[in-house]
Amino acid sequence: MKKIVILGSTGSIGRQALEVVDAFPEMYQIVGLAAGSNISLLAEQVEKYQPQYISIGSESDALTLKSLIKSRVEILSEEKGLIELAKLKEIDLILVAVSGINGLLPTLTALENKTTVALANKETIVTAGSLVLEKAKKFGVRIIPVDSEHSAVFQCLETENIAAVEKLILTASGGPFLKANQEELAGVTPQMALSHPNWKMGAKITIDSAGLINKGLEIIEAHWLFGVPYEKIEVVIHPQSVIHSMVQYQDGSVLAQLGCPDMRIPIQYAFTYPQRLLNSFPRLNFYELGEISFTKPDLAKFPGLSLAINAGKTGGTMTTVFNGANEAAVEFFLKGRIRFMEIPQIIEKVMLQHNSVKDFQVEDILEIDQWSRRKAEEVMAHR
Amino acid sequence: MKKIVILGSTGSIGRQALEVVDAFPEMYQIVGLAAGSNISLLAEQVEKYQPQYISIGSESDALTLKSLIKSRVEILSEEKGLIELAKLKEIDLILVAVSGINGLLPTLTALENKTTVALANKETIVTAGSLVLEKAKKFGVRIIPVDSEHSAVFQCLETENIAAVEKLILTASGGPFLKANQEELAGVTPQMALSHPNWKMGAKITIDSAGLINKGLEIIEAHWLFGVPYEKIEVVIHPQSVIHSMVQYQDGSVLAQLGCPDMRIPIQYAFTYPQRLLNSFPRLNFYELGEISFTKPDLAKFPGLSLAINAGKTGGTMTTVFNGANEAAVEFFLKGRIRFMEIPQIIEKVMLQHNSVKDFQVEDILEIDQWSRRKAEEVMAHR
Repeated sequence: MKKIVILGSTGSIGRQALEVVDAFPEMYQIVGLAAGSNISLLAEQVEKYQPQYISIGSESDALTLKSLIKSRVEILSEEKGLIELAKLKEIDLILVAVSGINGLLPTLTALENKTTVALANKETIVTAGSLVLEKAKKFGVRIIPVDSEHSAVFQCLETENIAAVEKLILTASGGPFLKANQEELAGVTPQMALSHPNWKMGAKITIDSAGLINKGLEIIEAHWLFGVPYEKIEVVIHPQSVIHSMVQYQDGSVLAQLGCPDMRIPIQYAFTYPQRLLNSFPRLNFYELGEISFTKPDLAKFPGLSLAINAGKTGGTMTTVFNGANEAAVEFFLKGRIRFMEIPQIIEKVMLQHNSVKDFQVEDILEIDQWSRRKAEEVMAHR
Repeated sequence: MKKIVILGSTGSIGRQALEVVDAFPEMYQIVGLAAGSNISLLAEQVEKYQPQYISIGSESDALTLKSLIKSRVEILSEEKGLIELAKLKEIDLILVAVSGINGLLPTLTALENKTTVALANKETIVTAGSLVLEKAKKFGVRIIPVDSEHSAVFQCLETENIAAVEKLILTASGGPFLKANQEELAGVTPQMALSHPNWKMGAKITIDSAGLINKGLEIIEAHWLFGVPYEKIEVVIHPQSVIHSMVQYQDGSVLAQLGCPDMRIPIQYAFTYPQRLLNSFPRLNFYELGEISFTKPDLAKFPGLSLAINAGKTGGTMTTVFNGANEAAVEFFLKGRIRFMEIPQIIEKVMLQHNSVKDFQVEDILEIDQWSRRKAEEVMAHR
């Protein structure tokens, strides 16, 4: 039995991860669960999976949980709770599926703890890719990507031919506004941006997807995870989300991973890797698929994608700033404080005020992240 | 330097294999070349590649060659010439790219000789799959498929997950008559059938492709090469020939190999396997690709495909009969003796007269092959 900790168990990825666990009841034991603020669902999960440890976002919620839960379980809280879970000994795998930069410290802790990390949180890599990958290397720990695109690349990468990779081709659905014009984009509401055509995901990532900023974050993530320079990472719009990403080799061959747009498949792969176990999740049916298509992303319409690439190419702490400003701006947008197209504008203005630093520690990253959010707030106020 | 023998060097695959050799002049030494009847091209190839041995289809052609060629080269002929080449010691790889059942004895000989076989001749496996695979296993020799579909499957098969294969999905362009109706099919001339929409290939395989019989042969080939039961092999019509084939795993993931329809890519892969070397062959451009599509094959319109699957499921020598009758019928068609749609009719009638044998030796196969051709002739005469 594999012992598993799930950080972010009440979110979209966390819930689907528990469905994977349900599909293989003999294989996985849930040792720890952590949630942000969904107390009632976490309490249900505790009854069902009987973990030894749980953690919740705030101390007051921890108190409420204590009154709700009958099982014996140690209840932790706040960021230190996530870190405690990441420190647990004899854990086989930790799924980091919290949202935003909150994934960073637990991921670094798990790597130091030599626990395999199934990483569903791209912000961790975007903000501090070099630190995370250095740590993984130093402690000889594997990071298995859960993002469908990176899982696809991971599945298509031949270990003996890493040096022969000519290009990573990340596919993008293009989001709900693929065919929208500038005028329509100007009028996008949170509700409109929250309805993704193919994938059921959390709010933050869905907004990121709508503006192709998610794809930008994925480029940065792919750069670090697979050690491929930005010049060799390409984005292709593929609205049907059937091909989840591809690897082009220098012999002209392209390997692709395909499947239904169902996150349980890459989550399961991260859990069972390198094995592939039989499940009853939906299969692609090529006889009913009809046509699938590919086009070039419209960088003029979605400037966030170019900003991400620029941040990545600048390197150092610029991607931390990109991510921090974006997290802030997405929150502003969801609260109705800015318009959709202002998200990249705010990011750009914050980036322009930052001088990238090449040498940094985790503390610097956390500080620069906070700085970016404050700057985003300032930029919003003074526009 | 890898020492290479090419059987069928003046055919479509053979010529493209030599283009691959041209692309890596430091890596390959051509030790032997064999051709059917194209004396002048073989003579040119001898001047250029300076092999030590060559072989040509007939003794009289061998004499003509002697007078044509200035270089020192041993000139062999007929089937025994092919076998001599397959017996050469210290050869790293033999490319079997002759047409039809002629590939069988040289392939078996090469396997006994412990020479890696790059196999471009599917009839070898179709007529005697069990013998060929047993021999490969017994002598511990690798057979690397060159057919684009099987090369794709070979590239998508994870060695640790062979048992987790749920389905092989062979793609088919559908050939030039994908959209033809019965009436149009009735009027197909050899010239019409010889113009394949995507691939430049030899005459026999092009006719096979036009009636989806080639896909049937490929199903049988895939069954043997990859040890997958017929129930788990599916054909999908994909007219753009961008995805060359796929492997679906039991976790719902599908791996696919893509590329331009250029046989030099799978040929090179067979030569360089497991490495992938940089070449200047054309790359897929997803930005210009537009749409690609998938449909179910029309078995009523292309009965040859069902016949092949039936032959495969019957097993034993029935696939030998399928292949022999088909080789004969294709020849009749190319000579204008039968109509296009009579090819599967003749095959079916010959198959109906055969009782499949499960236990057989090479001699039996060769005899049954001859019997099938005679029967095909008879069936044609008495229709």
